[in-house]
Amino acid sequence: MQPDPDRFAVIFRSQRTPGDHGYEAMAERMLDLARQQPGFLGVDSARGADGFGLTVSYWASEAAIEAWRQQADHLLAQRLGAERWYEQYSITVAKVLRTRGGPGTKGL
Amino acid sequence: MQPDPDRFAVIFRSQRTPGDHGYEAMAERMLDLARQQPGFLGVDSARGADGFGLTVSYWASEAAIEAWRQQADHLLAQRLGAERWYEQYSITVAKVLRTRGGPGTKGL
Repeated sequence: MQPDPDRFAVIFRSQRTPGDHGYEAMAERMLDLARQQPGFLGVDSARGADGFGLTVSYWASEAAIEAWRQQADHLLAQRLGAERWYEQYSITVAKVLRTRGGPGTKGL
Repeated sequence: MQPDPDRFAVIFRSQRTPGDHGYEAMAERMLDLARQQPGFLGVDSARGADGFGLTVSYWASEAAIEAWRQQADHLLAQRLGAERWYEQYSITVAKVLRTRGGPGTKGL
């Protein structure tokens, strides 16, 4: 039996500022870009009416996460995020140990 | 310099069924209970208007996660979750490697 392949999770917590200020368009663009990055495995995102959001993306390696962090357009989005879109945010990188699904689970 | 203490993340993805069916009351109760568990470090949660939600809880050890999984009232909530509240869900356990915050980050 092969061991599970490595998988890393990037947990992005953020509190949005009020108003859009180009956020939705950039968020969609970043999602498209992330999907094209080598080692990208998947992403989930949820934001409540209070503006607090969680995005968890999954990657095949720490090198893939680092490459995404340094991607040029993503660097611009990070700058605008810090200046304009987020009151606060944090990023946690974690190594996935195991995943189990309940009934009806699709994808990850 | 001391190395960072161990920290584990439990990523809970869920798609809610329509309607409340006692969900909100139970969710609050589970949050209160989790906070009392040994090794509980924190929790974040977001759910969008589409009913998709992410909850990430942080724990000091895998033993603490297992104890919470086996907590009696939590077992009941898990059963009701599978039967009543969630169309689908999955749980990922991951070991935190590092966290960095942006401007204004509080807590984790």
